[in-house]
Amino acid sequence: MGCRSLLLLLLLLAFLTPAASSPVSPSLRAPSSLPWSTSFKSRPTITLKYSIRYIQQKVDHFGFNIDRTFKQRYLIADNYWKEDGGSILFYTGNEGDIIWFCNNTGFMWDIAEEMKAMLVFAEHRYYGESLPFGADSFSDSRHLNFLTTEQALADFAKLIKYLKRTIPGARNQPVIALGGSYGGMLAAWFRMKYPHLVVGALASSAPIWQFNDLVPCDTFMKIVTTDFGRSGPNCSESIRRSWDAISRLAKKGPGLRWLSEALHLCTPLTKWQDVQHLKDWISETWVNLAMVDYPYESNFLQPLPAWPVKVVCQYFKYYNVPDTLMLQNIFQALNVYYNYSGQAKCLNVSETATSSLGVLGWSYQACTEMVMPTCSDGVDDMFEPHSWNMKEYSDDCFKQWGVRPRPSWIPTMYGGKNISSHTNIIFSNGELDPWSGGGVTKDITDTLLAIVIPNGAHHLDLRASNALDPVSVQLTRALEVKYMKQWISDFYVRLRKMN
Amino acid sequence: MGCRSLLLLLLLLAFLTPAASSPVSPSLRAPSSLPWSTSFKSRPTITLKYSIRYIQQKVDHFGFNIDRTFKQRYLIADNYWKEDGGSILFYTGNEGDIIWFCNNTGFMWDIAEEMKAMLVFAEHRYYGESLPFGADSFSDSRHLNFLTTEQALADFAKLIKYLKRTIPGARNQPVIALGGSYGGMLAAWFRMKYPHLVVGALASSAPIWQFNDLVPCDTFMKIVTTDFGRSGPNCSESIRRSWDAISRLAKKGPGLRWLSEALHLCTPLTKWQDVQHLKDWISETWVNLAMVDYPYESNFLQPLPAWPVKVVCQYFKYYNVPDTLMLQNIFQALNVYYNYSGQAKCLNVSETATSSLGVLGWSYQACTEMVMPTCSDGVDDMFEPHSWNMKEYSDDCFKQWGVRPRPSWIPTMYGGKNISSHTNIIFSNGELDPWSGGGVTKDITDTLLAIVIPNGAHHLDLRASNALDPVSVQLTRALEVKYMKQWISDFYVRLRKMN
Repeated sequence: MGCRSLLLLLLLLAFLTPAASSPVSPSLRAPSSLPWSTSFKSRPTITLKYSIRYIQQKVDHFGFNIDRTFKQRYLIADNYWKEDGGSILFYTGNEGDIIWFCNNTGFMWDIAEEMKAMLVFAEHRYYGESLPFGADSFSDSRHLNFLTTEQALADFAKLIKYLKRTIPGARNQPVIALGGSYGGMLAAWFRMKYPHLVVGALASSAPIWQFNDLVPCDTFMKIVTTDFGRSGPNCSESIRRSWDAISRLAKKGPGLRWLSEALHLCTPLTKWQDVQHLKDWISETWVNLAMVDYPYESNFLQPLPAWPVKVVCQYFKYYNVPDTLMLQNIFQALNVYYNYSGQAKCLNVSETATSSLGVLGWSYQACTEMVMPTCSDGVDDMFEPHSWNMKEYSDDCFKQWGVRPRPSWIPTMYGGKNISSHTNIIFSNGELDPWSGGGVTKDITDTLLAIVIPNGAHHLDLRASNALDPVSVQLTRALEVKYMKQWISDFYVRLRKMN
Repeated sequence: MGCRSLLLLLLLLAFLTPAASSPVSPSLRAPSSLPWSTSFKSRPTITLKYSIRYIQQKVDHFGFNIDRTFKQRYLIADNYWKEDGGSILFYTGNEGDIIWFCNNTGFMWDIAEEMKAMLVFAEHRYYGESLPFGADSFSDSRHLNFLTTEQALADFAKLIKYLKRTIPGARNQPVIALGGSYGGMLAAWFRMKYPHLVVGALASSAPIWQFNDLVPCDTFMKIVTTDFGRSGPNCSESIRRSWDAISRLAKKGPGLRWLSEALHLCTPLTKWQDVQHLKDWISETWVNLAMVDYPYESNFLQPLPAWPVKVVCQYFKYYNVPDTLMLQNIFQALNVYYNYSGQAKCLNVSETATSSLGVLGWSYQACTEMVMPTCSDGVDDMFEPHSWNMKEYSDDCFKQWGVRPRPSWIPTMYGGKNISSHTNIIFSNGELDPWSGGGVTKDITDTLLAIVIPNGAHHLDLRASNALDPVSVQLTRALEVKYMKQWISDFYVRLRKMN
């Protein structure tokens, strides 16, 4: 497994949206003083009432030779919607099943009444049920040719126009785009490219600058390392040294078998390549933990304790330990992530993200437009050195999909760092989130706003309100609502002037 | 020839760019009091020094399955360019040979020194030499699939980034997009979609609202009629009555032969359909005259006198004349347009625009994105009634190209009338120009400005400065330069702040 494969895994996991959380303890204090629990309690499920609908979309908005259409799925909830002075909150769906995103974007549900809002969740083409060519959608690069951000944004545009045309009372209502992670990028880009259709955008944890040379490729892994470094003494240093321990053990006679047993792997390691795969999988776990380092117990990919990085770091207090002990510590740490519930019989190094995410689709996107370089040097970060090798990346993409990535396209299309002429976008970032390194973390103008949430992980603000939310995210959400209300109010002022 | 065929011809002719003019008389007075001359004098040719260059562009910017590239041609002139405080004026090429546009956009050459500007003229894909599939480019809808405004704008974006990357000193310079007619739309849309690449746009005679139901379809022909109505007593009324005269004559025994001889047609009429074709051709001539109704002698498609509509109207003073006399008057009027030089032996009803324009390409664009409805009723305009029939139009397109137009797409993509969130675009319009009906003729905000040039025809302001220019266009150009300088100055202020 090369550095590109690692990257793809990282990207996939990075873009997961946290599931509804299971609060255990108040978490208004700094991470180092927070309690954590090893007992997992599930949170009562909130029933979200929405209708599932479909719209016929052109497979190709940008060409006329193929006039085929497909059914795009979207969800709509209008319980709190008011025709008089209301609004439409439009979730720009990302790389997964839209019902899963809908269930995991509690913020929109929480503010619907206050905003008199109709909620719309639009599924991204090639994900969930919105497959342009059904089962053939991923069969080859010809069928995948219409999986681009531009096509996705055009779907959103057509859907909004359709809703305004067909829903009585919706015509003269302001629409706001919201999204997290890749969906946050889409929300921001949608406002940039279609400002006539949305009055503003909330782009949560959207690394719109994690492209080309806009940010150093090592920023991402440095942030992961910082998270681990501040979560326990010697933690990041221990992990930095653990890679060599794994290598040393693997090289010994029965090393692969010993490693397989020590880590309770479901499938034993049999060759040297498997060791690299193992390391990639472990790296991915640490990265993933940094992203979901929420201050309360949660049940995302796996049930997790509050501040899971801190829990993991319990096992990395000492780095001058024998290799075999180091490996046992790694096993304990991995168990926090993969076996917090105590149900797992073994650890599966092939385990990837929830099936609600579209693995194939994202892999293709990462091989075309969504090229987001990351690298590590093992000095300023705790990972093994991996340079960013565009040539190798491109060759791997060509082998896998028959396409070559165009790494400079996204900045050409969406402006790179030169986006100051746009307006009404909030970029919110979790300070702990490795993706914040590619995000907008400083105000660009007085209408292009950045919020950094102290001790926040990946798009914490989009999650459902929780009695144990830290003040930082409560304030963030209040600020977001304030700005969105201002956009809505400005819209109605303009509307009245026109009439 | 159906109403669609007429429309296509109208569109084609409408989008011609006037050639360098031949001044004859000062023209600061109202049209009705202006002198005109029947003697044609050619103007000394100005030698424009530019380099012809090529850039490799992706055939498909919005898909990765086809990775083929083609050579896009562009012209560059840097005689007056200054690295220190200079600018780049970027002509967004429209539907024809870029050298022809370059030669006919004297305004850019005239202001180059004052703006310390590098001039760039980018050829539009599928026109001139910039053919994505060479001789096969127009062979079928598969090869034509990449002829869209979005692809053209993406070419411009890539070219600007390439120039900034490769020309020493160009990196930190402001770029302004300029264009006329369809090229004017592209300039405006380019600023809307790529504001990170151009600080502003001058969109001359750009009917960005001549789409869908944004303006009534009859506006265009009404303006033509008004032009004729104010250019001579009874002029538009005579033309309105002339269509029945043609029909009556055609229905008589030897009518077709008589008509063919009376009008000195190169190819005699032989069937009833030819009569409709004849009427379409005559209509097109009047429309064309309205567009090039310049206040001085010019040599555009044909050599023309000053105020050619006024000249034509000399032959339409009386409408209560026998049909045969009416036809002789039509012949005289057509002669003004087609035989001002006195060289023509006969009139050719197949005659279309200069070969510098891409007839095939535009016909395809009009059948896909660029659907610009026009209609006439014969009451409020001087033409025979032609309703706008989208079904028929679409069927004709499907027969011709195997594609169906998407008339609502351009407003969805580019905002229709809801464009107020954009900035730094000047929309200039000639009051006489029928396309002004679909143009932006009132300021939208204090940075989205409209200029209407009294007594101006189709993008008069982009033509070379002329000693006999009316004051109106002189003032217009001065205002345009003032705004462009402001954008440039704002750019450098921002740049200094950043450094």
